[in-house]
Amino acid sequence: MNIIEIIEKKKNKKTLSKKEICYFVNGYVSGEIKDYQASSLLMAICINGMNEKETFALCDAMINSGEKLDLSFIKGIKVDKHSSGGVSDTTSISLIPILSCAGLICAKMSGNGLGFTGGTIDKLESFSGINLERNEQEVKDIINKCGCLIIKQSKELVPADKKLYALRDISGTIDSIPLIATSIMSKKIASGNDIIFLDVKVDDGAFMKNLKDAKKLANLMVKIGTHYKKKVAVVISQMAEPLGNGIGCYYEILDSVDILKGTYDKNGMLYKLIKFMATNIMKLSGKYNEKDAENKFNEVIESGMAYNKFTEMIQLLGGNINDISKMNDCLSHPSQIFTAQNKCYIKDIKCRKLGYLVNEMGGGRNTIEDTVCHSVGIKLHKHIGDKVDVGETIAEIFNTNKKLSDDEIYARLKDCIVLTDKPTEKTKLIKYFTTN
Amino acid sequence: MNIIEIIEKKKNKKTLSKKEICYFVNGYVSGEIKDYQASSLLMAICINGMNEKETFALCDAMINSGEKLDLSFIKGIKVDKHSSGGVSDTTSISLIPILSCAGLICAKMSGNGLGFTGGTIDKLESFSGINLERNEQEVKDIINKCGCLIIKQSKELVPADKKLYALRDISGTIDSIPLIATSIMSKKIASGNDIIFLDVKVDDGAFMKNLKDAKKLANLMVKIGTHYKKKVAVVISQMAEPLGNGIGCYYEILDSVDILKGTYDKNGMLYKLIKFMATNIMKLSGKYNEKDAENKFNEVIESGMAYNKFTEMIQLLGGNINDISKMNDCLSHPSQIFTAQNKCYIKDIKCRKLGYLVNEMGGGRNTIEDTVCHSVGIKLHKHIGDKVDVGETIAEIFNTNKKLSDDEIYARLKDCIVLTDKPTEKTKLIKYFTTN
Repeated sequence: MNIIEIIEKKKNKKTLSKKEICYFVNGYVSGEIKDYQASSLLMAICINGMNEKETFALCDAMINSGEKLDLSFIKGIKVDKHSSGGVSDTTSISLIPILSCAGLICAKMSGNGLGFTGGTIDKLESFSGINLERNEQEVKDIINKCGCLIIKQSKELVPADKKLYALRDISGTIDSIPLIATSIMSKKIASGNDIIFLDVKVDDGAFMKNLKDAKKLANLMVKIGTHYKKKVAVVISQMAEPLGNGIGCYYEILDSVDILKGTYDKNGMLYKLIKFMATNIMKLSGKYNEKDAENKFNEVIESGMAYNKFTEMIQLLGGNINDISKMNDCLSHPSQIFTAQNKCYIKDIKCRKLGYLVNEMGGGRNTIEDTVCHSVGIKLHKHIGDKVDVGETIAEIFNTNKKLSDDEIYARLKDCIVLTDKPTEKTKLIKYFTTN
Repeated sequence: MNIIEIIEKKKNKKTLSKKEICYFVNGYVSGEIKDYQASSLLMAICINGMNEKETFALCDAMINSGEKLDLSFIKGIKVDKHSSGGVSDTTSISLIPILSCAGLICAKMSGNGLGFTGGTIDKLESFSGINLERNEQEVKDIINKCGCLIIKQSKELVPADKKLYALRDISGTIDSIPLIATSIMSKKIASGNDIIFLDVKVDDGAFMKNLKDAKKLANLMVKIGTHYKKKVAVVISQMAEPLGNGIGCYYEILDSVDILKGTYDKNGMLYKLIKFMATNIMKLSGKYNEKDAENKFNEVIESGMAYNKFTEMIQLLGGNINDISKMNDCLSHPSQIFTAQNKCYIKDIKCRKLGYLVNEMGGGRNTIEDTVCHSVGIKLHKHIGDKVDVGETIAEIFNTNKKLSDDEIYARLKDCIVLTDKPTEKTKLIKYFTTN
């Protein structure tokens, strides 16, 4: 077999065989096929596409490129949740303890943030002492004790995706539905869970810019799940504005704590999305009907069970749960407050720009080597569609490390939040939902 | 400017600006833009194409990537001729002295052969002592003395093409009309000639497999020529079977000698193509009309002028012209002769396979580092459409270095020449001709 012939086949809109796709993936992982050949083929795939059979073959080859997780030691229904990445999206940190309290098991692997999007691992590292790189025995021990954990993505799982994704990122070959679907699904399948719940973000603050493509991606991922006999559900949710209130590690952890303690606004999109996910996952498990799921959700929060599970998980991972008071202390000392000069309405909150602002304040990463400052951030007190009275707080700035000047941050924040004197509509949270 | 954005633009079928194309070419030549980014963009160009404006911009950027030849020291009309590469195509070696005798000047740069195609430089190196790597002063001296020469492609001319072509070859991005056209034309424009005559081969023994694409390429190259105010003509000629009789350096030089001495078959395709080229170039120069051109062609051959010019050129380049007798000696001692067992007709001569056979006998190159054996080869005595009587010679084998066994060569040769008992049609030589 010859990689040039394979590249030319896809260039000429022909279908690649399972063997050819395997040859490409294995050859690329081994280094026999070069970056410039892989990027050329990936571009041909971006433009000419892949049919379902090719997509399954690619997913298979990627899964088989490395180790698979054997979660069979865990009794019960194992759940994985994945988001395509957004701003102020702290759903996983609250969702995992909630599901654990509902009798479902989550051993979730997460990543660091990059660019304008935050990462669950960075946020959890707000807790001093926490260690999220764990070996198999440690994972078993923690799961056996508390039924849930979040750890850092293992390096051995799906090395093909690691290498292909890094190449796609620097060769302009990111936005292909089959490539995105196999990148996500290969890791999800290899991680051995029973239920896979995927949250695809759309709009300004997401990689996916339009709903049509997001729907195609959602439907393809569900098909891949069916192929591997996995329960898969995909929600497409808004990323036109930040999902929660906090942007920046401390303030996103505090959003999670509010959710888990039941003190978060029940009309807030973060709360609504977590509830939507939790209750749907419960239903997918076959153990709950609609009403039971909702009752369970309310019960584990109101009883304090969910928050206790969260503190247990943080402590088992080595984190100092008392750091929450340190975070609250930061929250009560904003460096600046953006208040309304007139009665107005929130017309727009520029999600991507805000994400980049917090990143540049030191709260995010541009390369994996960057260190994150956990205490910088912004807290939104208003969302799109909200009415604001004169003097009311719209947002607070926490410029703890002065990487950017207070003046610059204030000016850029004002630029991100568009006000108007006419009433505006709230953002629609859930745009699509599908399952197999 | 950002290469990822440029790649994504072409991926999304958008038009690239002149600035963006320059940024790509210069960045790739300097090494700032990586191979995997260039191959990804080249694939997007292969699939989504380039309009004329983009093609001119690419050609411009390539021309400006290195030195240009200043041929202004040469008085008179300067002619360049280029073939897209085939089997037994020795037109340049005869054409250049003929044109010189007709008062036109040819300082032709040629390359080595690769794969199944031969190269003019390899063929000329059949002459012991010949030195085809010449500096500017030496080129001037030889041109001033005899009005023509063939030298090896200079390394400094269009470095962008050198680097891009090497990458295209190993990344499956060869067959794109704008990329082929700019690769050829950038070198032709940079070499400073007034008349550019291009021979695009089609069929089995050529890179171009179909006439439709070859016509597109021809028309695009003429347009590029017009853009640079150059006289450009393109002929599309057959490569369904070897053009001449000899395949292999010695035997192709001997074909050229026959042409120049007037002893080559006047109905042979090699003779006809050289005559077509020479008379058309004379007409393009504005110095000849149809009839004058034909008369001149016949005259320079019949008078011995053309052959004398050839010997003068070889000697000025350091070559030992007496080696022709050594070549003739080889020709009269074939290692094997393939004769007809029955009365028959030639139905097909598999051009590409024959090219590869002579290559594997040691007569060609697979990499630029390979050394060529000049004395191995095959001589065809018959072409497609020819009638063969019992016992008549169809082809002779010259296996001077025994790299392959005689038996293997004979079997493979027989496999390449398809015989039939029914009359067959001759190959059509010229399929298309266009000029500006």
